[in-house]
Amino acid sequence: MAKILFHQYGKTQVRLTQVVRNGEEHRLAELTVKILFEGDFEEAYSNADNSKVLPTDTMKNMVYVLAGQKPIASPEQFAQDLAAHFLGSVSHLQRVKVDCLQAPWAHIGDHGSAFVQSGSERRLAASSATREDHTITAGIRGLEILKTGESAFSGYLKDEYTTLPETRDRLFGTVLDASWTYRNAALDFNAAHASIRKSLLETFASHQSESVQHSLYDMGTAALKTHDTVSEIHLVMPNKHRILFDLKRFGLENPNQVFISTDEPSGYIEAKLSADT
Amino acid sequence: MAKILFHQYGKTQVRLTQVVRNGEEHRLAELTVKILFEGDFEEAYSNADNSKVLPTDTMKNMVYVLAGQKPIASPEQFAQDLAAHFLGSVSHLQRVKVDCLQAPWAHIGDHGSAFVQSGSERRLAASSATREDHTITAGIRGLEILKTGESAFSGYLKDEYTTLPETRDRLFGTVLDASWTYRNAALDFNAAHASIRKSLLETFASHQSESVQHSLYDMGTAALKTHDTVSEIHLVMPNKHRILFDLKRFGLENPNQVFISTDEPSGYIEAKLSADT
Amino acid sequence: MAKILFHQYGKTQVRLTQVVRNGEEHRLAELTVKILFEGDFEEAYSNADNSKVLPTDTMKNMVYVLAGQKPIASPEQFAQDLAAHFLGSVSHLQRVKVDCLQAPWAHIGDHGSAFVQSGSERRLAASSATREDHTITAGIRGLEILKTGESAFSGYLKDEYTTLPETRDRLFGTVLDASWTYRNAALDFNAAHASIRKSLLETFASHQSESVQHSLYDMGTAALKTHDTVSEIHLVMPNKHRILFDLKRFGLENPNQVFISTDEPSGYIEAKLSADT
Amino acid sequence: MAKILFHQYGKTQVRLTQVVRNGEEHRLAELTVKILFEGDFEEAYSNADNSKVLPTDTMKNMVYVLAGQKPIASPEQFAQDLAAHFLGSVSHLQRVKVDCLQAPWAHIGDHGSAFVQSGSERRLAASSATREDHTITAGIRGLEILKTGESAFSGYLKDEYTTLPETRDRLFGTVLDASWTYRNAALDFNAAHASIRKSLLETFASHQSESVQHSLYDMGTAALKTHDTVSEIHLVMPNKHRILFDLKRFGLENPNQVFISTDEPSGYIEAKLSADT
Repeated sequence: MAKILFHQYGKTQVRLTQVVRNGEEHRLAELTVKILFEGDFEEAYSNADNSKVLPTDTMKNMVYVLAGQKPIASPEQFAQDLAAHFLGSVSHLQRVKVDCLQAPWAHIGDHGSAFVQSGSERRLAASSATREDHTITAGIRGLEILKTGESAFSGYLKDEYTTLPETRDRLFGTVLDASWTYRNAALDFNAAHASIRKSLLETFASHQSESVQHSLYDMGTAALKTHDTVSEIHLVMPNKHRILFDLKRFGLENPNQVFISTDEPSGYIEAKLSADT
Repeated sequence: MAKILFHQYGKTQVRLTQVVRNGEEHRLAELTVKILFEGDFEEAYSNADNSKVLPTDTMKNMVYVLAGQKPIASPEQFAQDLAAHFLGSVSHLQRVKVDCLQAPWAHIGDHGSAFVQSGSERRLAASSATREDHTITAGIRGLEILKTGESAFSGYLKDEYTTLPETRDRLFGTVLDASWTYRNAALDFNAAHASIRKSLLETFASHQSESVQHSLYDMGTAALKTHDTVSEIHLVMPNKHRILFDLKRFGLENPNQVFISTDEPSGYIEAKLSADT
Repeated sequence: MAKILFHQYGKTQVRLTQVVRNGEEHRLAELTVKILFEGDFEEAYSNADNSKVLPTDTMKNMVYVLAGQKPIASPEQFAQDLAAHFLGSVSHLQRVKVDCLQAPWAHIGDHGSAFVQSGSERRLAASSATREDHTITAGIRGLEILKTGESAFSGYLKDEYTTLPETRDRLFGTVLDASWTYRNAALDFNAAHASIRKSLLETFASHQSESVQHSLYDMGTAALKTHDTVSEIHLVMPNKHRILFDLKRFGLENPNQVFISTDEPSGYIEAKLSADT
Repeated sequence: MAKILFHQYGKTQVRLTQVVRNGEEHRLAELTVKILFEGDFEEAYSNADNSKVLPTDTMKNMVYVLAGQKPIASPEQFAQDLAAHFLGSVSHLQRVKVDCLQAPWAHIGDHGSAFVQSGSERRLAASSATREDHTITAGIRGLEILKTGESAFSGYLKDEYTTLPETRDRLFGTVLDASWTYRNAALDFNAAHASIRKSLLETFASHQSESVQHSLYDMGTAALKTHDTVSEIHLVMPNKHRILFDLKRFGLENPNQVFISTDEPSGYIEAKLSADT
């Protein structure tokens, strides 16, 4: 017999489309939901006893049931409501984690019932709850951004295997993943998300970047400083290298204009920052 | 010895980033380029004779060399210029096909040198050229759109295996691939692309759809009617089904509000339309 | 009004698992099926008249109904049976195309009811049928192969933009897509597929390759020569470059031992060969 | 100023092919490597000071340099050697984590220099090292397995939203991710990996499964019991549902033979087990 150090189970990739119809003006929410349970479920593993196991199919049903009961005001609220439901209905559940990824749909022109996907990023909203505490996390997944100016990388450590040339003018492209934790649940989640996203983008754009680390830190600091409601922010910024193409071989100059776009290998920079210094 | 019925070779996934710097205001073009050669290359296959084979690595070099020589005015122009170069330099080349897919980058706010990817769709521009003729194709790849109203599917053929219920109000989501052929090369490709894209979107949005086929046809017809420069348009519209979730089991109504988003199985509708009736 | 030059519709990504139970010994077939209809369906496009449109949902149902009626002897037979059904039931259908991709499942050890996926490749089987004629195509999708010896590329055409060094010893890796057409339907499709696959692999392995084109041609020729039942073969072989890493900078030799694996850019070589010279 | 709670940086997707040539018999290792640094790098974030930052490009170089110095005996050894190098050369580095994913290449027949990829799974080998301690983890990513017998799910908790029918005979398919920790580094990593993989597969195959949890636990327990060198094992087993297709509507029986293969939604079961009870 082995000892169980950690276990969780649930349902992933539950895909929901909700339409709220106010006459000709429709609102559209499309979410992909993940639900994970932690608690007193060990007997299912070690003793083939399923009596405490709520089927993951039932978790899936609840996503649609909840969406049928009321409009989704925000994915954060929806995640909280799902978490609260399961804590209320499964007594031996200790912690439930609900993650929602929302696709960005925008109206086509002024057509009330036609939509176009307005980006490749996804909005993240997550709830991690026990009967005693409750954490609400929001964020961004897959936001592709790129700077063509005000980005340098120099003065770094060199050893005998370092061949990278220093540069005061490079391209800096990344696919941002950001998550932040709210201090409490009494806020306008949609407005907060839009404002924090804007703060991250504006800082990235206006930054005199000395490294990915440097931009990451200043982006996170700016978001924390202007949003009291956020206690922590976690940023992951891969460095999607644009490599200067050697045109000298062909008698041409390349004053930082022509680059090879690459996905791999990729730099990887990650940090979690706290407002409380 | 086998007979060669068809052959082509080339380079795919050549990824280019070009920055054009007008002081603080930068222009960014990111393309993924494919180049294919048809011509007198049979001896490489059947006789291990490479003397007429231009390496695909050289094709790749040319993408960057051309980008180093001048700003990319439009992906259509860039594709044409690449095609013209190869027809000029490789005498036994009979047909060259160049495909460009452009990622949508938009300035972040009014920052001249910072960009955000503004959608998941790609702009297609392709040139297929011989020394006698030349076809320019433009298009859209991967444009996600969805209608929550004015979409029906009824009155269709039924056999003993048909279980689909008729509906006068369904969700209709697709990921549009569109390609169209220009009658000549003397036009503003960027303006034409924007205008045709808008025509497709507007028709999709305002359409009283009786089927995917019906919307597809009216979208293509609208684009052709309002753009004399286009001779043909080819539309592919998979039906990304949203399936009504059965809430009655739980004592709830579902008046077309809560759906399961699905990717597979998927309907598939395709047609090529001509302006010349 | 626009003229319809071409149109087709159908269902894609229909995913089927069929289990055939002979006591403790089970047989498992997992297919992804695509069905496309061509025929008298124009009124749906141009006149919003669905009366001749069999729903794609019904096509999907038929995949499972047919799988419920008898064991799948081969994906080629299954594709033919599906095609025959639709030609029999929809009078205005002119051509039906059925593509099946089969995942490779093998028994785990000698366990009759447990399976492991034994490769990333897929087996292709396709039927394209009208009431007059019928073409059966078989093939392979995504077979990853690599040669570390007996592969050269030299003697090729050079222009002023050619920088690729000639080599008599390079790595040659590809992801093979192959399709071939059978002359008739009276054969053991499973045995034929295994034999042709083996012929392609053996020729690739033993070949003194002067180029991708050269290997492709000899692979196709070998398959045609040893299989009278095959009339044509179509091979697509991207060149997944392994680039020699420059170790001289660090005082080390690299006698063709250490390479960067790359996916992009990628060479692309394609040809269709006929047995009838 | 924000406080940095956690930070790490490094290089991902470093792709290496190494060929070891013993006359006509070649050995091929293809790895994708990730390297992450933790340590005294805060000044790069908070003070734009790169003087302690070894470029991630240098990390990438080291992968190829090390591969140029000696044959890769095992990915675990390679990961350890990389970790040891960086700990030796960067004094302010506190922890380095190296992950290797190895693609499965097998010889084609008895050809010494031709290979075919023999599965879609990847072998994982990871080293996490400080100057004081060192953890070696091995594992499997993406092993697709499926049981068509001896799999049940019944006796579970039901609430008012539970609609899943109980079953004593269902299909059970998963894509296994497994990781395990070795007690020490003095062992034959290749033999250990093969033996643990076999133990997991055999237990999965012969198991009378009452749930995914039950199989997961017994698989992990079997691996731990027969391998003293393993202290912990971590298993993730999504439930890739095969849903019985309703054939009764068409007058046909479906005695557990015809299923819809699905990827989403998906069950998710995860546990970490310890040998020390």
